[in-house]
Amino acid sequence: MALNPNAAIEITAFEWVPDFAKGVVRDLRARWALEEAGLDYRVRLLGQQRPADYLLEQPFDQVPVLREGELCIFETGAIVQYIGERSEALLPRDSQGKYRAIQWTYAALNSVEPAILNLLLIDLFYAGEEWAKLRRPGAEDFARLKLKRVADWLGDKQWLEGDRFTIGDLVMVTVLRFLRHTELVAGFPNLAAYLKRGEARPAFQRALGDQLATYEQFQPEGEAA
Amino acid sequence: MALNPNAAIEITAFEWVPDFAKGVVRDLRARWALEEAGLDYRVRLLGQQRPADYLLEQPFDQVPVLREGELCIFETGAIVQYIGERSEALLPRDSQGKYRAIQWTYAALNSVEPAILNLLLIDLFYAGEEWAKLRRPGAEDFARLKLKRVADWLGDKQWLEGDRFTIGDLVMVTVLRFLRHTELVAGFPNLAAYLKRGEARPAFQRALGDQLATYEQFQPEGEAA
Repeated sequence: MALNPNAAIEITAFEWVPDFAKGVVRDLRARWALEEAGLDYRVRLLGQQRPADYLLEQPFDQVPVLREGELCIFETGAIVQYIGERSEALLPRDSQGKYRAIQWTYAALNSVEPAILNLLLIDLFYAGEEWAKLRRPGAEDFARLKLKRVADWLGDKQWLEGDRFTIGDLVMVTVLRFLRHTELVAGFPNLAAYLKRGEARPAFQRALGDQLATYEQFQPEGEAA
Repeated sequence: MALNPNAAIEITAFEWVPDFAKGVVRDLRARWALEEAGLDYRVRLLGQQRPADYLLEQPFDQVPVLREGELCIFETGAIVQYIGERSEALLPRDSQGKYRAIQWTYAALNSVEPAILNLLLIDLFYAGEEWAKLRRPGAEDFARLKLKRVADWLGDKQWLEGDRFTIGDLVMVTVLRFLRHTELVAGFPNLAAYLKRGEARPAFQRALGDQLATYEQFQPEGEAA
């Protein structure tokens, strides 16, 4: 439901990130799922220097980690699924509905995100390199093909499995947001509308607002806002 | 347990693939999980020409799809998890054990596989291209860093979460196999031993044997075996 320093659920997030990462760091997925599920949570903030033993919590040195009592897990796919099991609003209870939602969570992370992140990394980190200039057209084509697959499946449905928003949509929407520096999603009007529908959800807006508010609070002096 | 044409569970697989793909096509994950769980299954084979409506089953045009009664799902992560829920041998029942296993399934597919497949695609499909030659050292470094993260976590444990093999190990082992054309895994002796332990499991051997036997049966004349 809301940030609450006494909540049972804790997630990790960064104090601050540069502009290009604002609004797409993966704790957003956990925050959004928690907001949709109506569960309070608290945030443990990490600076540029992670605690020495953070790799024991998150072997890939990323955020978020979710803790609740004895439970400690990483990977946003697993985290949104864990939250989903607490909330029928996010993860249907019947076997077919449940596994269709889980399937789309995996599809977003394994069949779509890699092609999209590949393009994002070329544009953000390697734009000046010769290989990146040569590779970019092919990388864009591959990302576009993945979008076409999702758009073709979606058709005129509201969400990936019809009328009901699930964890699969939640993760897919956050994956599509990695392309916000391009016009690729706009090339598929039904997908662009789907992305907009996701981002318009009040739970998403609260999650995004809370993530961005932290970065503002920890804005280093002299860095662009 | 075994291939059985009357089994309730059906998966899709390819009749035949070229050498580079033999033993790594993703139906192997489903077969292996089914063997570990002791569940019979039947296979629906697909030729080079997929059925016209296959994208309605698998929007990314890949294998496998799993069907059981009314249930129809794709994405190997979701499929092994579905099978895991049928078998405590693969997916612990307690919340922490269950979500630690699921977390590693997602980690294998989202935090490790993309870097490894990136290198594999460079070596298999783009080796002659200028961008690939320029990019390969960086792509290899990135894949090696991912292996280091997993190796550091693994330490001297038998499996990712200790003494017990789970769906997380099953998927991680199949991801590491994508590097079989390199010596990268061998650079981390504990990880190489882990991979060997996974591949030595009788259920893996049966699954691999059944996948390869089909390719042999459908071997096109004039193609290298």
